[in-house]
Amino acid sequence: MKENYDEYKQVVEDHLLDFIPNIDAKSGTLYESMKYSLTAGGKRLRPVLLLAACEFAGRDSNVALPYACALEYIHTYSLIHDDLPAMDDDELRRGKPTNHMVYGPGIATLAGDGLLNTAFEVMYKNLFLCFDDPAELKRRINAAYVISKGAGVRGMIAGQVSDIESENRECSREMLDYIHLNKTSALIRCAVEAGLYLGGAEDSVMRDMMRYAENLGLAFQIADDILDVRGNAGEMGKKTGEDEKNAKVTYVSLHGMEASEKRLHELTENAVAAIADYYDNAEFFRNLVLKLEKRTY
Amino acid sequence: MKENYDEYKQVVEDHLLDFIPNIDAKSGTLYESMKYSLTAGGKRLRPVLLLAACEFAGRDSNVALPYACALEYIHTYSLIHDDLPAMDDDELRRGKPTNHMVYGPGIATLAGDGLLNTAFEVMYKNLFLCFDDPAELKRRINAAYVISKGAGVRGMIAGQVSDIESENRECSREMLDYIHLNKTSALIRCAVEAGLYLGGAEDSVMRDMMRYAENLGLAFQIADDILDVRGNAGEMGKKTGEDEKNAKVTYVSLHGMEASEKRLHELTENAVAAIADYYDNAEFFRNLVLKLEKRTY
Repeated sequence: MKENYDEYKQVVEDHLLDFIPNIDAKSGTLYESMKYSLTAGGKRLRPVLLLAACEFAGRDSNVALPYACALEYIHTYSLIHDDLPAMDDDELRRGKPTNHMVYGPGIATLAGDGLLNTAFEVMYKNLFLCFDDPAELKRRINAAYVISKGAGVRGMIAGQVSDIESENRECSREMLDYIHLNKTSALIRCAVEAGLYLGGAEDSVMRDMMRYAENLGLAFQIADDILDVRGNAGEMGKKTGEDEKNAKVTYVSLHGMEASEKRLHELTENAVAAIADYYDNAEFFRNLVLKLEKRTY
Repeated sequence: MKENYDEYKQVVEDHLLDFIPNIDAKSGTLYESMKYSLTAGGKRLRPVLLLAACEFAGRDSNVALPYACALEYIHTYSLIHDDLPAMDDDELRRGKPTNHMVYGPGIATLAGDGLLNTAFEVMYKNLFLCFDDPAELKRRINAAYVISKGAGVRGMIAGQVSDIESENRECSREMLDYIHLNKTSALIRCAVEAGLYLGGAEDSVMRDMMRYAENLGLAFQIADDILDVRGNAGEMGKKTGEDEKNAKVTYVSLHGMEASEKRLHELTENAVAAIADYYDNAEFFRNLVLKLEKRTY
């Protein structure tokens, strides 16, 4: 496995545009708008997790690269649509004007659609390369399927709908957990799961690592809610205090800051405990979740 | 093959909701909004073509049903997004309020995303059922891949972007052909192609039928442009004269009504000629394109 997060991140950034199909110059704006959001920075957490999980399972992550990029296309489309005037109406993302501020909401909607469609197109195309290897074919189909589920109407999209609906109205703790589990955590979980499938992980490893991913995903969202209250806008590249302004229920607004930090710490410990059996090999994943607890951007 | 269009259409309508995953009641609005647009009627042209092409190639169309429905999910999502305030801002579709008029533009955006994602999820899931049959697996992967291409950034989405960009500005005949070829025709072509793959069609049949589909797709768009000028709003379930109001360039506005009708007739004849070798078996497809030339809604 690579030594640190930034090495995986660099691989993702170097190849992120490689899998976008050649778009006719007559639709040049489509390509420009997709590229604009793809190259606007970000942590690349999901593709990094996917590549690392594949190597953790014992296989070179080259095979996982199209899936890692596809997952980042899906994450990026969800941000573009989330920022639209029809949704959160955000003007800034990662320190840059949001997609619709540059290209208008019509093109931004289509750029999002294009990224989602491309993600699946890339993963289908990638099946053609291994028709003679049924075991490999099965791994790839499993990976693509869990990504489609995590991103879909029983995953991320379900969470986004409930998130919109919970604005400006009473939201129970149970509902907030449901939103977090789907809106953010689903894509993080499927990143790990897809990477493990591609790496050919055994069932027991899969089980432990998914417990890790479950805790990581929830920790990530709570860390995000905490950051929105006390983060530094300059470091984060977006406004803070947006959740309060938008009357969004967050873990912090519902449980308070102290309880949020306590829960974040618990989830971090659970994640670390889930992979304790792999002490020598899981340093990357342990560091990642520990760093997340302390993150400032 | 079934005797007429409506028999295939009935099969599609009967099973259209069968492949939508069980959505948690906490995201019930997501399911409601997807269902609203899916069950709002329509010609079901694309799924009907897919089923019929599969049977034309000699195979029962049951195997093609998930793909036919997935294609209608994609078509439906494209209509929902197309109608959004950020795009065409239409209030009426098939005689009913558009999705965003009922559920708001945020949920409508997500309902569209959900339908697109579900289409691909369904087609991935369907691969698990034939792991032991490599030939069948290959047919299904081919079908899913051509659908993802037709719907994507070198197909339908490319056409939509260029369509938006051509509003209120000079649009060449070449550009209009490009828009038609992608915005409408791409999905019609891939319906036929996917059905033929699933049916296991031979190369020569594939070639002839794709020539048919090419001409059908272009004929369909020109017929649509003609109808927008002279159609009956009541019969069509949407306003007519919308293209002129939106300053949209159409085949009619660029070439005139007479030339449009002539071109529609030519394309119809080309489509019929392409499948002349299959006189006994291709009656369904011949009738379909001939009826299209005369359609009033």
